[in-house]
Amino acid sequence: MAENMDLRYTEMSEEGMGLSVKVNSTLFHDESDFQTIDIIDTPALGKMLILDGLVMTSDRDEFFYHEMISHVPMNSHPCPKSVLVIGGGDGGTVREILRHPCVEKVVLCEIDGMVVDCCKKYLPNIAGKLDDSRVDIQIRDGVEYMKGKKEEFDIILIDSTDPLGPGVGLFTEEFYTNVKNALKKGGIMVAQSESPVADQKEMKLMYALLKKVFPIVRPYVGPMPIYPAGYWSWAFCSVDVEPLSYIDEKRVEEISKNSKLYNADIHRSVFALPNFVKKLVSEA
Amino acid sequence: MAENMDLRYTEMSEEGMGLSVKVNSTLFHDESDFQTIDIIDTPALGKMLILDGLVMTSDRDEFFYHEMISHVPMNSHPCPKSVLVIGGGDGGTVREILRHPCVEKVVLCEIDGMVVDCCKKYLPNIAGKLDDSRVDIQIRDGVEYMKGKKEEFDIILIDSTDPLGPGVGLFTEEFYTNVKNALKKGGIMVAQSESPVADQKEMKLMYALLKKVFPIVRPYVGPMPIYPAGYWSWAFCSVDVEPLSYIDEKRVEEISKNSKLYNADIHRSVFALPNFVKKLVSEA
Repeated sequence: MAENMDLRYTEMSEEGMGLSVKVNSTLFHDESDFQTIDIIDTPALGKMLILDGLVMTSDRDEFFYHEMISHVPMNSHPCPKSVLVIGGGDGGTVREILRHPCVEKVVLCEIDGMVVDCCKKYLPNIAGKLDDSRVDIQIRDGVEYMKGKKEEFDIILIDSTDPLGPGVGLFTEEFYTNVKNALKKGGIMVAQSESPVADQKEMKLMYALLKKVFPIVRPYVGPMPIYPAGYWSWAFCSVDVEPLSYIDEKRVEEISKNSKLYNADIHRSVFALPNFVKKLVSEA
Repeated sequence: MAENMDLRYTEMSEEGMGLSVKVNSTLFHDESDFQTIDIIDTPALGKMLILDGLVMTSDRDEFFYHEMISHVPMNSHPCPKSVLVIGGGDGGTVREILRHPCVEKVVLCEIDGMVVDCCKKYLPNIAGKLDDSRVDIQIRDGVEYMKGKKEEFDIILIDSTDPLGPGVGLFTEEFYTNVKNALKKGGIMVAQSESPVADQKEMKLMYALLKKVFPIVRPYVGPMPIYPAGYWSWAFCSVDVEPLSYIDEKRVEEISKNSKLYNADIHRSVFALPNFVKKLVSEA
């Protein structure tokens, strides 16, 4: 590449704002059966995974997302033995789950095998635990995989792309109902639920569906610098578990020791919602 | 402007990442004695104030910053009568302060009169309360203004630009000492303290200085979509008031009613810090 070439990746929303990042080089670019996959190397954020032109993760900031989606539900369960991740092909969520000593099995159900292979090769810090013996990687459609499952998992995490492209079937009442049925007693589902600032329409639709299926639907929020508006949400859903009704203090302390973000104070604070988020979800 | 012209404003950090925004038009552009001032109109964020090429505020997202810098300290004081804002020429912080019925006087000490005039004209939703009879606008250097002040204010808010350009003197031990002396008993200073993700070096330097001056220095954090990394911090500093030791519940409830972000849960949760922020501040 010419030394003076000013190469940039910019993710621009429909309204016209987004993240712009200087790029050193493109390490991988291909079309899978499902989406366009890019791995780029950047000075600011390290290596980044981009699917269909949208930032999924980056070396620098992946921990914001992966610690939040996993430890909040995991430590709300006294002993999560069997865990399912739908999507999450970069392996970051699985890596965090495996830090909990009670885990016996993690199923990763990812539709796109090329994402998994790519992340293993180019993002080893994120995907490096996918070869753990407790991990069962299923390369298949999460929508199909969930059909007919009964009380199999303690924790189910929906680590999906946005509600478009290959992830669209993961935002339906039917899918959420199958997830609910696949949870054991005391089980918890957490789904990434978009940006409360940048994706208000999508978020409202999603919470309307979740509230039809789960008696307990509680959003939580946190920073995520590389996602739209830098502010993200997750939906904590269950039949019988209210967030903060149980916290495994000992595990919180252990997990906190080697976490960049997560600790006991964070666990307790993430369910505090700004007024505009409360309104958005209550109107859903 | 040509209809097909793709005009964008991009704020790129030294490492090479930042916010990119489509622009409808430039409403104002001039050089004051202190800095370059731009007001641009954008489809995503409404009107935006930009100083020396850095985003200061925008119609859509200003509330994140202005509610956080003001209501957290204001409601930690039983009756803040006299309040000082250093910087804050856009008027957003003053607007929020005036919502507290106990306030008798707000001094706004802004170095750049052109910023105030500009915001009054182009950003009336933000600057619209600067004409309130309780507001005393002092167009002068905050560093000079603070010299020799003794126990004059209940709350002092440092609503400054970054530690470069005209704001640089607001990040010194001498200035903070003068601020401390200007606080009444039970007084609180809050200063914007940069992004814990994008400005770690600056933040560490700032907290090192603050800790030399104030016995109580407590960071708090929150989302700020239009600032670097979308994640911002403020320093709660006092001689005698620990955050959360007193919360004016009645005022919290009143203020919350017409706030977009702020409420009782938020007030209690903002001092919960990610591990990497705790580390950064403890090493300062």
